[in-house]
Amino acid sequence: MVKKPAVVVLGAGYGGLMATVKLQKLLHPNEADIVLVNKNDYHYETTWLHEASAGTLHHDRVRYRIRDVVNTNRVKFIQDTVEEIKADEQKVILAGGELHYDYLVIALGGESETFGIQGLKEHALSITNVNMARKIREHIEYQFATYKAEDEKREELLTIVVGGAGFTGIEFLGELVNRVPELCEEYDIDPKKVKIICVEAAPVILPGFDPELVNYAVSLLEKKGVEFRISTPIKECTPEGVVVGKGENETELIKAGTVIWAAGVRGNSVIEKSGFENMRGRVKVDMYLRMPGHENIFVIGDCSLVINEETNRPYPPTAQIAMQQGEHTAKNIAALIRNQELDDFVFDNKGTVCSLGEKDAVAIVFGKKLTGFKAAFMKKVVDNRALYLVGGLPLVLKKGKFKLL
Amino acid sequence: MVKKPAVVVLGAGYGGLMATVKLQKLLHPNEADIVLVNKNDYHYETTWLHEASAGTLHHDRVRYRIRDVVNTNRVKFIQDTVEEIKADEQKVILAGGELHYDYLVIALGGESETFGIQGLKEHALSITNVNMARKIREHIEYQFATYKAEDEKREELLTIVVGGAGFTGIEFLGELVNRVPELCEEYDIDPKKVKIICVEAAPVILPGFDPELVNYAVSLLEKKGVEFRISTPIKECTPEGVVVGKGENETELIKAGTVIWAAGVRGNSVIEKSGFENMRGRVKVDMYLRMPGHENIFVIGDCSLVINEETNRPYPPTAQIAMQQGEHTAKNIAALIRNQELDDFVFDNKGTVCSLGEKDAVAIVFGKKLTGFKAAFMKKVVDNRALYLVGGLPLVLKKGKFKLL
Repeated sequence: MVKKPAVVVLGAGYGGLMATVKLQKLLHPNEADIVLVNKNDYHYETTWLHEASAGTLHHDRVRYRIRDVVNTNRVKFIQDTVEEIKADEQKVILAGGELHYDYLVIALGGESETFGIQGLKEHALSITNVNMARKIREHIEYQFATYKAEDEKREELLTIVVGGAGFTGIEFLGELVNRVPELCEEYDIDPKKVKIICVEAAPVILPGFDPELVNYAVSLLEKKGVEFRISTPIKECTPEGVVVGKGENETELIKAGTVIWAAGVRGNSVIEKSGFENMRGRVKVDMYLRMPGHENIFVIGDCSLVINEETNRPYPPTAQIAMQQGEHTAKNIAALIRNQELDDFVFDNKGTVCSLGEKDAVAIVFGKKLTGFKAAFMKKVVDNRALYLVGGLPLVLKKGKFKLL
Repeated sequence: MVKKPAVVVLGAGYGGLMATVKLQKLLHPNEADIVLVNKNDYHYETTWLHEASAGTLHHDRVRYRIRDVVNTNRVKFIQDTVEEIKADEQKVILAGGELHYDYLVIALGGESETFGIQGLKEHALSITNVNMARKIREHIEYQFATYKAEDEKREELLTIVVGGAGFTGIEFLGELVNRVPELCEEYDIDPKKVKIICVEAAPVILPGFDPELVNYAVSLLEKKGVEFRISTPIKECTPEGVVVGKGENETELIKAGTVIWAAGVRGNSVIEKSGFENMRGRVKVDMYLRMPGHENIFVIGDCSLVINEETNRPYPPTAQIAMQQGEHTAKNIAALIRNQELDDFVFDNKGTVCSLGEKDAVAIVFGKKLTGFKAAFMKKVVDNRALYLVGGLPLVLKKGKFKLL
């Protein structure tokens, strides 16, 4: 009997899980062994984490068991942490052992990028995974509880600074403005005492997005109490709050009980550790999504860098592109195993939705601008579609968003 | 028209609220004006706070609006903080003004007693009111969330030290052992990693209580994971945990993310500030519950000290005695106004219940020992009875505990 090739997928995020699900469909058990490695025994919806972080959606609603969507008779699932990839030996170093591969899919996801800003790692919280999301939810609630229990009132405990006005920052703000009134009710606090400040180093909000939709988002959030401070870089984060730049040489301390860092995403540090050529943990892949110089390694999701030829700039890392890459990679690996020709990857941008709480959003879908409840509806359709693509109707019914209007 | 006398009640705890409710029934509007002063616009059930603190009962279930039980056409309610009583001028100094009285009921409640132990005020949490209860609930939950989100695990975040094995400490532990499995589920934490340690300086648990019932309580709590360390005084509380005495001269640091101080209750500091003779904020009242030397001032609840003539020691401050004092004081004030004779106060001890979570307890009721679900049932009867005495059936229906078994 000829030894079957081993296809190893690292990471069960949007890209890795999609690749695994498609591989288990495409490849006959005689063609290859499939192995999936992931830190947790669950997948989580990164694009829903802002809701779990604000506390508007329970974290069990944003995750599901890998075993519920992956056929574990067909795919060997290993719960472990990837430490390094040794490409010259065709093996992966895990915290708990080693793993040989013939074909590798690197889908390890991104990490928070702090750009070397002092104190950010220690004192700010990033919306990166389920563990952090529930910590953020509890952190904010603990500040409110503490404020109310102290005799000498420290108003800054009720100040929340959000660093970054990109998609993550804006979507988190959209949830936060809905959550704060609930917290004020729970802790008998006057809502007027709460401050939500969004600090952004760039001179724009939602860079690259349609200006009309940006205006809609900003005025809605401002109406609900958010103060925007653009062109305002964070210089340092301290236990008291953030020090921001003001004009040429001045700085200002904004005292805040909670600092959320939502301004930077980078690739994965395993990429760097493994000695691959990269830009902040991201690999510029070839037209087939392969690592240059390694015909059997595919890189997808937040670790891969694909150039948009229209703008000559990389596509931003989104769930949409990761899932398309996952599906495409599964097909290309099947082709490689069968000695067939590979297909180029072409990103099919179906649009972008930025939610502003449960009942509002801004969106461009198939080239059309949407705001308000129509856009919010689209957001839920997009969310349910992601579930459908991975787990079919059963997963949509189990984890989907049904309050569509 | 002759000026009506002003009856002023300070505090809307068990004693003060009972006195007010009875006064509004006993006194005709022509006989006196009644004024009630309280810090909050709600009354809370001090004897249920351990549940709100553990997170097993929402704090809105342990409180109700004063306006729901006091007739505000008859009683003037002032929401303010009492700062001092000037007995020689017959006035009360509030944070927001002054108040004249002809008859005064001091029912300001107790405070936490830290016996001068260093760091306890800063780093330990006491189950004293609604604000602290919800802070304790959130503090514990935040430790669990933080533990799970950190890469380098600090097991001590999952350690909860309860200082004191009196009624408050034991009842809190009873709730905590039920809450911890829920928290472990919520944060994906192995329950074996959680430590609950009860530290008590005295060589006994539940001092003064029936030894057989104490054994029942201890073995139940131990079975559910509580570690008891008796004859172990807390020497100091630090941000890391507690330093306890060990043998003659040694000490030991117990690292803990949460330290609950449930070992000491004293009277109110307003008593001391006002220059009344007192023992740790408590006034040894006369047979009519009056302040010695002041025929128009009654002191009830945790601020009053009544000697049990059988044991020649003061009765412990409980809700039961406070409510009886409140009712008795209302009658004596009516008698004073009507120039009738006053009645002696005699405490009618109906029994003691110590809950051990929702479904278990130990009790002595009318001289009979009870354990298990029968005692837990009695606890709920006692809780509902307290509601009934103040607000009648409507309040029981609104705030009562109906899962009686």
